Amino acid sequence: MLHAETQLTELRRGVEDILVEADLLAKLREARPLRIKAGFDPTAPDLHLGHTVLINKMRQFQEFGHEVIFLIGDFTGMIGDPSGRSATRPPLTPEDVRRNAETYASQIFRILDRDRTRVEFNSRWMGPMSAADLVSLAARHTVARMLERDDFHKRYQSGKPIAIHEFLYPLVQGYDSVALRADVELGGTDQKFNLLVGRQLQQAYGQPPQVVMTMPLLEGLDGVNKMSKSLGNYIGITEPPAEMFGKVMSVSDELMWRYYDVLSFEPTSVIAGLRQAVAGGANPRDIKVRLGMELVARFHGADAAQQARDAFQRRFAGGELPEDITEITVQARGAGLGVAYLLREAQLVTSTAEALRMLQQGAVKIDGERITDGRREIPAGASHVFQVGKRRVARVTVRG
Amino acid sequence: MLHAETQLTELRRGVEDILVEADLLAKLREARPLRIKAGFDPTAPDLHLGHTVLINKMRQFQEFGHEVIFLIGDFTGMIGDPSGRSATRPPLTPEDVRRNAETYASQIFRILDRDRTRVEFNSRWMGPMSAADLVSLAARHTVARMLERDDFHKRYQSGKPIAIHEFLYPLVQGYDSVALRADVELGGTDQKFNLLVGRQLQQAYGQPPQVVMTMPLLEGLDGVNKMSKSLGNYIGITEPPAEMFGKVMSVSDELMWRYYDVLSFEPTSVIAGLRQAVAGGANPRDIKVRLGMELVARFHGADAAQQARDAFQRRFAGGELPEDITEITVQARGAGLGVAYLLREAQLVTSTAEALRMLQQGAVKIDGERITDGRREIPAGASHVFQVGKRRVARVTVRG
Repeated sequence: MLHAETQLTELRRGVEDILVEADLLAKLREARPLRIKAGFDPTAPDLHLGHTVLINKMRQFQEFGHEVIFLIGDFTGMIGDPSGRSATRPPLTPEDVRRNAETYASQIFRILDRDRTRVEFNSRWMGPMSAADLVSLAARHTVARMLERDDFHKRYQSGKPIAIHEFLYPLVQGYDSVALRADVELGGTDQKFNLLVGRQLQQAYGQPPQVVMTMPLLEGLDGVNKMSKSLGNYIGITEPPAEMFGKVMSVSDELMWRYYDVLSFEPTSVIAGLRQAVAGGANPRDIKVRLGMELVARFHGADAAQQARDAFQRRFAGGELPEDITEITVQARGAGLGVAYLLREAQLVTSTAEALRMLQQGAVKIDGERITDGRREIPAGASHVFQVGKRRVARVTVRG
Repeated sequence: MLHAETQLTELRRGVEDILVEADLLAKLREARPLRIKAGFDPTAPDLHLGHTVLINKMRQFQEFGHEVIFLIGDFTGMIGDPSGRSATRPPLTPEDVRRNAETYASQIFRILDRDRTRVEFNSRWMGPMSAADLVSLAARHTVARMLERDDFHKRYQSGKPIAIHEFLYPLVQGYDSVALRADVELGGTDQKFNLLVGRQLQQAYGQPPQVVMTMPLLEGLDGVNKMSKSLGNYIGITEPPAEMFGKVMSVSDELMWRYYDVLSFEPTSVIAGLRQAVAGGANPRDIKVRLGMELVARFHGADAAQQARDAFQRRFAGGELPEDITEITVQARGAGLGVAYLLREAQLVTSTAEALRMLQQGAVKIDGERITDGRREIPAGASHVFQVGKRRVARVTVRG
């Protein structure tokens, strides 16, 4: 194994917070494979690049010889929302869980080493747990401390109901760390409270407390909001190479550097060199191509990455488009703007009626590809080349 | 069965609150045996007259043909206090529970009809309950409503910790009503919140809600504090006839009327007559004798009651004591006063050393009975005749 100090330096990269770093160093010095836990929601197995910030960190631990535990929190998912408040959360069946786990597997093993990843389900220990044991677990934490959690605090203060079982879920998540004897738990910054509950419960159950490592939440394509499926500002890790590449190319230069910092596996020294190159006059677009290729290669292989780049460049660099394209900025409505409205706002058509007609006739292209659905939403922050017929061309950026 | 309205009139007697009375009337009109639930703590099987206020009400339901369920809450007792905050609450073993239940039985069946009483243990349904089911149960109630409970509210406001499992216990008690399909639940006024949780949970589980009937908390011998074993101001229902009778005779006249109201089975018209008699000059002491006899007869039979009265009267009325006894009042320290201190304060001895010597020599009597333990605590509010040797006599009242 690498020296503990060397590991720690690398592990710090891109991390928001480590609690407690001295504990992590001490564990690394034990020179044994540490148990690295990360929990995943069983209901949403569609991963995007935002999730990979954390998975990449798991991979790094794996490369250093540690044991990575991909924990699917199916126990609470199979209970659903018994308060009946959210009709959109029906309980999952064991069959749902199995299917979702397979979907997860097909995605995470594009990044993680299958042979050094333990996939666990917390129903394994929570399912057989008795009500009496759960009461004992609940005795390990106080109401006041639970109400310190940001979202609970706000809801309590504003008179919005908190059902009592919601106080039990952080305890279940914390108990998972006890059951797994986790050495480290990874999570988003929004999970910090829950990760600390795990640390505290392990102590209550006589175990050395886990190190809590929080990862930043990745901004979506708009550069503003957290990347999320519901906002539409995401790059899914199963998206086809051309789409993935095109989306990377659509982000702003500023966001590109952010993505380099948290998504690229390039050494920090290389990234610093790229920044210098741009400062010295290099075209940021070429740097963006490099990032696009790295990410497509990660999920689809090097060949697919080259093909995606070549196709993209043929469309835009191969003379099909004028060298200097008009730049237009339009205002989003909500999280984005429908194509038909966008075309009108950009004055590429005179009315939405004309937009719809042109779309129907197949006369509209986005980044060189034909588009017919006028309701397709272009997310705020995105920037694409739109063509209507042969002569009307513009690069349109949607402002959030 | 009696007319519903007739039953209701009788059932109202001595009750603090009925929620909702119209529901009770409707249930009584169904002319079927109602399921009457009352929960008891498995850790304290020593019943005193304070507990009998509620048990008497159970008996009344029983007399009207309803089914009475004596529920022993052993599920939580067998968990103990897992937070480890109170070292004095070790978990009960099943053997403890069985033994305590037998102790209960030997006491309650002095009042209740054994053949029409169902003894239940909530571990029967809570024991097999899974953690998942408890989560579902917890989803039926909110944190905010739980924090409305008086004691929780005060502790939260004053920063005293509330462990989360304490929020689960009212839910368990409430679920007992679901499991039993209770029609009515009886409890002390201090239990009102928990009884209402049962009502609400039954509705959540699709059952008609139970009627909640709260009984007043009985004042102890001091006439001030709630009757309780720890305060020493109680009459235990297994106490020997002479002691029970003597304690009844020691209460103030005012408290005597209170005891008549909530403990006596005499018709209200008879009690009204007794009050009139005293107003017309009758000696309250004779009325107290009547109450003492009723209570001793209830727990020990009519013969024992007569013997207790006769012995009491021989000691006090048979010339052994002067007709006019000096009345002395002394100040309690805390909940009462030790006998040795009491004798000194009452100036029946010159020092506690003398008190202890006289006690040791068997020269001290309390209400005509020899006493040797100088540490015996006389509760605040109590009033007894103390004799030291032949000549030193006084009735000493301990002021709280």
